[in-house]
Amino acid sequence: MANNDSYTKLHNHMKETSLLGSCGSVLGWDERTYMPRGGSKHRGDQLALLAGLIHDRVTDKRVGQLLDEAEGKTGDLLTPESVNLRHWRRGYDRATKLPKSLVEEIARVTTMGQQVWGDAREKDDYAAFKPTLAEIIRLKKEEARALSNGGGLYDALLVDYEPGETTHNLKQVFKALRDDLIPLVEAIASAPRRPDLSILHRDYSVDRQETFGKMAAEAIGFDFAGGRLDVTTHPFCSGMGPGDTRITTRYDQNELNQAFFGILHEAGHGLYEQGLDPDHWGTPMGESVSLGIHESQSRTWENFVGRSRGFWRHFYPKLQEVFPEVLSDVSEDAFVFAVNDVRPSMIRVEADEITYNLHILLRFEMEIAMIEEDLSVDDVPSLWNQKFEHFFGFALENDTDGCLQDIHWSGGGVGYFPTYTLGNLYGAQFCDTATDELGDLDAQFAAGDFGPLKSWCTEKIYRQGMRYLPNELVKEVTGKPLSHEPLVRHLRLKYSELYGL
Amino acid sequence: MANNDSYTKLHNHMKETSLLGSCGSVLGWDERTYMPRGGSKHRGDQLALLAGLIHDRVTDKRVGQLLDEAEGKTGDLLTPESVNLRHWRRGYDRATKLPKSLVEEIARVTTMGQQVWGDAREKDDYAAFKPTLAEIIRLKKEEARALSNGGGLYDALLVDYEPGETTHNLKQVFKALRDDLIPLVEAIASAPRRPDLSILHRDYSVDRQETFGKMAAEAIGFDFAGGRLDVTTHPFCSGMGPGDTRITTRYDQNELNQAFFGILHEAGHGLYEQGLDPDHWGTPMGESVSLGIHESQSRTWENFVGRSRGFWRHFYPKLQEVFPEVLSDVSEDAFVFAVNDVRPSMIRVEADEITYNLHILLRFEMEIAMIEEDLSVDDVPSLWNQKFEHFFGFALENDTDGCLQDIHWSGGGVGYFPTYTLGNLYGAQFCDTATDELGDLDAQFAAGDFGPLKSWCTEKIYRQGMRYLPNELVKEVTGKPLSHEPLVRHLRLKYSELYGL
Repeated sequence: MANNDSYTKLHNHMKETSLLGSCGSVLGWDERTYMPRGGSKHRGDQLALLAGLIHDRVTDKRVGQLLDEAEGKTGDLLTPESVNLRHWRRGYDRATKLPKSLVEEIARVTTMGQQVWGDAREKDDYAAFKPTLAEIIRLKKEEARALSNGGGLYDALLVDYEPGETTHNLKQVFKALRDDLIPLVEAIASAPRRPDLSILHRDYSVDRQETFGKMAAEAIGFDFAGGRLDVTTHPFCSGMGPGDTRITTRYDQNELNQAFFGILHEAGHGLYEQGLDPDHWGTPMGESVSLGIHESQSRTWENFVGRSRGFWRHFYPKLQEVFPEVLSDVSEDAFVFAVNDVRPSMIRVEADEITYNLHILLRFEMEIAMIEEDLSVDDVPSLWNQKFEHFFGFALENDTDGCLQDIHWSGGGVGYFPTYTLGNLYGAQFCDTATDELGDLDAQFAAGDFGPLKSWCTEKIYRQGMRYLPNELVKEVTGKPLSHEPLVRHLRLKYSELYGL
Repeated sequence: MANNDSYTKLHNHMKETSLLGSCGSVLGWDERTYMPRGGSKHRGDQLALLAGLIHDRVTDKRVGQLLDEAEGKTGDLLTPESVNLRHWRRGYDRATKLPKSLVEEIARVTTMGQQVWGDAREKDDYAAFKPTLAEIIRLKKEEARALSNGGGLYDALLVDYEPGETTHNLKQVFKALRDDLIPLVEAIASAPRRPDLSILHRDYSVDRQETFGKMAAEAIGFDFAGGRLDVTTHPFCSGMGPGDTRITTRYDQNELNQAFFGILHEAGHGLYEQGLDPDHWGTPMGESVSLGIHESQSRTWENFVGRSRGFWRHFYPKLQEVFPEVLSDVSEDAFVFAVNDVRPSMIRVEADEITYNLHILLRFEMEIAMIEEDLSVDDVPSLWNQKFEHFFGFALENDTDGCLQDIHWSGGGVGYFPTYTLGNLYGAQFCDTATDELGDLDAQFAAGDFGPLKSWCTEKIYRQGMRYLPNELVKEVTGKPLSHEPLVRHLRLKYSELYGL
């Protein structure tokens, strides 16, 4: 048992800190959806104040004292008390290990860095971004050294996004994945069949896209009594607390895919948020476990469910009803093929279910090179381009579509990229087990029955909060450690059939 | 000069407190516009946390020490430093004079009280509300005694909404107003002409109501680059900080008036918020001075401007363009008459420009009776009904449309009602002076020119922040103390012409 008094004090302090953080979530959501543009300076002041108050609470010396008093008395490692103490300790140590001067310098450089990056990207001017990137890499290495306890530097950064994961393990799994995906992409590129993409680029009224998107999100289990769908430039999902999870998308009247699969993607994140245990809200036991596991849910509901044959067996007639004059001449086969188009492309965020992973593997290798192998920023574009040609089979023409395309590094997000592909890997591995336990999921989807999979995910993943580390959770749920095989198997099966390989 | 160091510390502390308060404003706006209903419990927790943090900051002993150090060294009473110190002192004394136990009891009783009131109102069951009302009146008297310094109890409550105003003065001005308004309402009731109200109850598409409402709000000067218009059940205006002022309304497809004049009303509040000095944001010099002065702006832009002949000379052709099939057979005269319909009615919030004040005067007299004259809650309905018949010339049939109709008392808002009529009085008095200084305002409105009045209000009222108390501001701007005469003159002139008196 924990020292009850200390644990209770700590619990209240931490929960109140989460509550304050959730106020910031509302302000952040508002900033990205409805805030008039004149309000941005003031919003910055508000968010900075909240961040400062939260930082003070997180690094408060009393937290360290209460942790010392409460720890080691909780018995079983899987009780909520033990789980919470473990994660609070990790967070406290991390927050107090970093010198304040370093935290402030990183904040300053990355705030400015995002502007410098934006300009450089627009002008295809890597040289303009280079000094900032060098500075950011230097600072992130310093951060990693302060946190690493003598271990690997990239490990120290990675753990911030994917606790418990190691560079060593990722290198092995990602290499195996890469070795299987490159030939698959090549086979698809020379396949006898190609989908007709023009059917996705007809006149799709935004109102009706929204109606259909909401219908689908609701059907897979997103609860609109405790959630919303709004419009934004860069779609996201924000869980603000029990009963309030909001997703966003963006519409293009001449393109169906982006908004619809965007909605399913964010609704997948939303199912995770809505499925967390409200009784543990504000503590690790009521929080999502990692970015990778979170992404496994968005990818599962977007791709494994939303791009499946069964899903469209159920939904395609409804889509035709919503857009009768647009889709009356398009067969279900043609439609399913079109939404599963695979082709090598330059831009990560526009990539398909297969090549998306190659974009991530490339970035992972670049980060390892910068953080662990002292790659000079002078050599970033050439190494990027060389890897790109190897992975994708054609050459890049500029840095805007190459090493300048993502905002992550300019904002200090180094070690974040792997979580996207981890999400795909976890998702496939979970779905394998779910199929073993629930039977033919595709047949269930075809009957419009998404409840069994949602309930399974809720019980096995969402309700667990942070009880297990991500790699422990995968083993707990699937009985096996992280592997590239379920994803590769799923992709090979699905795309062989579609492309007649 | 203030003790600079102490003043600066105080300034930073208070501004940061305002910043935290403005985070609450965003959460409050969201709660009333977009929050999914499932989020209300969590939102309550968030707002309670912010309120607690703000209370701690407001009553912090260091504030008292810093005030002691900074006061009496600021020279001229009208410098920003003097103004700010004066109001911070008032706020600090008020916040620290009230025992914490009393504050908490009032919060508890009024939170519950609003539910009890809602149920009682729905069931027309005054007896169910009576014990709660008795408790609230008892607590408000206790609060008044703690704050009164031996002065009048109602004065002590009033000052919370209208600093510097006195019960004695209000009694005199309100009595004079009542004595003039009752015969005017009677004259209108027996006038030879009546407007045709059916023209306001045609099929007005909500989309087009919104388009027209925004056009009008923008024309009078509401800045949508720093503001928004959204939909809510109980319309309000919320100034969240520089560059972000939001107004709301509610639409009825079969009624034009409510949404449109609601938009003008809230846009009037919005002009005040947008006209405050951003350099003084977060301090009294950058805040609105009182509820009454705030209401003077909503009433000015809704009634003095929005219900004027000139306004519709400019806007009626545009309204006809927006609703061609609905209004082609309606003349400007008929329309202006309809939007200026006057008739005694039971419900305050639905009342016209004249009888609205009678509703307020009745409530003011009731509050005096309860707070100063120990009226028993047993006698509230009978006294209300007796006064109502005297003021309005007909009898009420139930308490739901009588003493149970408003939420204010159940929420602890005693002393609030007078600010509505003060708003009408201030507004008429300001507009008298504006006419003297700017010339024929109605002719300017007819030319679509609202800039001169807006600039005048901005300079004379909005930019002054809390430099003057409300009664001082009226005298400063108009050269005269608060009087019922400008309002009565305005109403007599306008309605004699409309009704052919």
